[in-house]
Amino acid sequence: MPKISKKGVEMPASPIRKLTPYADKAKKDGKKVYHLNIGQPDIETPEIMLDAIKNIDFNVWAYTPSEGTLAYRTKLAEYYNKIGYGITPADILVTVGGSEAITIAMQTCINEGDEIIIPEPFYANYNGFACMSNVVVKPILSHIENGFALPSADAFEALITEKTKAIIICNPNNPTGYLYSKEELEALKELCLKYDLFLFSDEAYREFCYDGKEFISPMHLDGLDENVIIMDTVSKRYSACGARLGCLITKNKEVIQSALKFAQARLSPGMVEQIAGAAAVDTPDAYFESVNKEYTLRRDTLVGRLNAIEGVFCPNPGGAFYVVAKLPIDNSDKFCQWMLEHFDYNGATVMMAPATGFYSTPGSGEQEVRMAYVLNNTDLNAAMDCLEAGLKAYPGKI
Amino acid sequence: MPKISKKGVEMPASPIRKLTPYADKAKKDGKKVYHLNIGQPDIETPEIMLDAIKNIDFNVWAYTPSEGTLAYRTKLAEYYNKIGYGITPADILVTVGGSEAITIAMQTCINEGDEIIIPEPFYANYNGFACMSNVVVKPILSHIENGFALPSADAFEALITEKTKAIIICNPNNPTGYLYSKEELEALKELCLKYDLFLFSDEAYREFCYDGKEFISPMHLDGLDENVIIMDTVSKRYSACGARLGCLITKNKEVIQSALKFAQARLSPGMVEQIAGAAAVDTPDAYFESVNKEYTLRRDTLVGRLNAIEGVFCPNPGGAFYVVAKLPIDNSDKFCQWMLEHFDYNGATVMMAPATGFYSTPGSGEQEVRMAYVLNNTDLNAAMDCLEAGLKAYPGKI
Repeated sequence: MPKISKKGVEMPASPIRKLTPYADKAKKDGKKVYHLNIGQPDIETPEIMLDAIKNIDFNVWAYTPSEGTLAYRTKLAEYYNKIGYGITPADILVTVGGSEAITIAMQTCINEGDEIIIPEPFYANYNGFACMSNVVVKPILSHIENGFALPSADAFEALITEKTKAIIICNPNNPTGYLYSKEELEALKELCLKYDLFLFSDEAYREFCYDGKEFISPMHLDGLDENVIIMDTVSKRYSACGARLGCLITKNKEVIQSALKFAQARLSPGMVEQIAGAAAVDTPDAYFESVNKEYTLRRDTLVGRLNAIEGVFCPNPGGAFYVVAKLPIDNSDKFCQWMLEHFDYNGATVMMAPATGFYSTPGSGEQEVRMAYVLNNTDLNAAMDCLEAGLKAYPGKI
Repeated sequence: MPKISKKGVEMPASPIRKLTPYADKAKKDGKKVYHLNIGQPDIETPEIMLDAIKNIDFNVWAYTPSEGTLAYRTKLAEYYNKIGYGITPADILVTVGGSEAITIAMQTCINEGDEIIIPEPFYANYNGFACMSNVVVKPILSHIENGFALPSADAFEALITEKTKAIIICNPNNPTGYLYSKEELEALKELCLKYDLFLFSDEAYREFCYDGKEFISPMHLDGLDENVIIMDTVSKRYSACGARLGCLITKNKEVIQSALKFAQARLSPGMVEQIAGAAAVDTPDAYFESVNKEYTLRRDTLVGRLNAIEGVFCPNPGGAFYVVAKLPIDNSDKFCQWMLEHFDYNGATVMMAPATGFYSTPGSGEQEVRMAYVLNNTDLNAAMDCLEAGLKAYPGKI
């Protein structure tokens, strides 16, 4: 019997899915489960985007160019130029979700065995993508006490070696919701220029900034054109996670030309998605205003409720739709599993993502959980009632 | 300025796209270009599949499970069991096109530096996928004289080393159109069992078998369940290349579980595509009968016309919609470029794929071209008039 590969063995399973069997069991036993564990928004996809699907008028569902259709890249450039990126359609490679933008960026830019620095906690799948590309992740710890602000330049420099090739940021951040400031991005710029590093900017949550705070991208910084690679997706922007439509953007010609070769191997991104994605660029501002109002309300509810529970601390994040909260518990993996397996409050329980899955430094995040505020306010309140009761009853409370 | 990776430099560009700039120039100069170079069929996508897109009725374009929806995998199992694969939905991983099925299969099964044997000429992108996974391709030469039949077991054994982990076949074959016989597959089975090899079977063209010939899959062979991995796609079956919807099928539990981890990292295949793909399984038989009749007519035209040209030899393939023909020329790269750059017949020319791109043994395929019969019979005849005249005029004729 042939054996699978070493990588097939070592590839990490998705940490946010490892509790799924317990959630399934809980539901089978008749419990209601409030899903705060994954970033699947309940927000409706813009009508203009869904209508574009319903109104397709082709007879052959054909390949598109590997880099994406010119029509879609032109609309995308329009979207990005409205926010000051100063790009052309030639700077865009359309990808199959943000995921593919990340894998192509890693393969194009980072040698095997070379290192990328990522502030942790970080999006867990970066580990999987790094494993696929034989890239070494060097985590740099950020701290809940200051809301997961960017670590200092000194802390970065302490990690930089000859093998360091890039820094990845996710802004606003998944899982912390932290929105990086102009000053923090300027600090990253200095590091990237000083050490010749790529700056990968995962901007999946760009549209979700609260309290009037401004979103700043490395694309807005002068003199960093050769270093910046934007990894983006329509998944969260238009609540279209199932579209699998993203893009890689860079003004570095060598990178975009090389990235195209990886895109050519897989032939084409989806055709229907690009039609829908082009239409989505014309989503009215009112859509985003209403969505942001809704998320702000939810965040305020969630953060308020969490901090009102004894022993719980949750920073108030400036963006995305996640929070990482510190709970008075022995171990977040055990606690999250226990909530599904052994607890209910009026027949309901809460599914959260243990923050351990978002750290690669062993032992980190054991008292933290990530929650996505992808439920309406009523359900969020009910989930918090449940969590509050759960924390009281949990045998591993500390 | 940061440097791209070694892999970013070494990744092969798509050979079938390298003449595109010459084709664009020819069109700009007012020439009509008959595209026989790529496998984008002109056949219409089944109405049932397009209607499924138009009739979507969801409000949130959501992620699906990483392995694909149970609804789609259930319909797929129905399709495969009709042709005797004896599988369950749990044996299927839905992928983003056949391309992703290949990359996931390689990463799951083959160690870096290990070898896969592929009869050549072969689908050029296998080279790109192998490069991405650091897998070494060992080509085994098949010959135009016997229609590109499978090389002998002895020839395979001469190539097998301790590093050999898999054999890939594409059946019916792209680029040759060759349809492997039961005896040939039995020979592969013996090799795979004797040397503990995976057998990757790329069956993108399964529906296209002509002259009443039967399609045989390794999935039909007894005792090979742990070795066989099917890589499939809806691209050609339903003329839906732009759907980017494929699947990986195996009864090897260890492989499917490991493959799922790679799928989890990229979260989800497309949602609309899976709805359309499920509907497509109910495509009436009459669709395939009419498509196969059309392709048979075209193949007969193309093969007949080619063999009627002095110095040209083209085997009559049993499947797919490609032929590889031997032409009386010095160099197929030069000839194909010359046809676009310097030749026209009544204002038209033909774009073909030089077969060199489908061989990895240096110097092979220099007198061969691949043609896809994806044009209607009238255009095919016009393209052959043009090729015939081109061969007369070509300065590098031998």
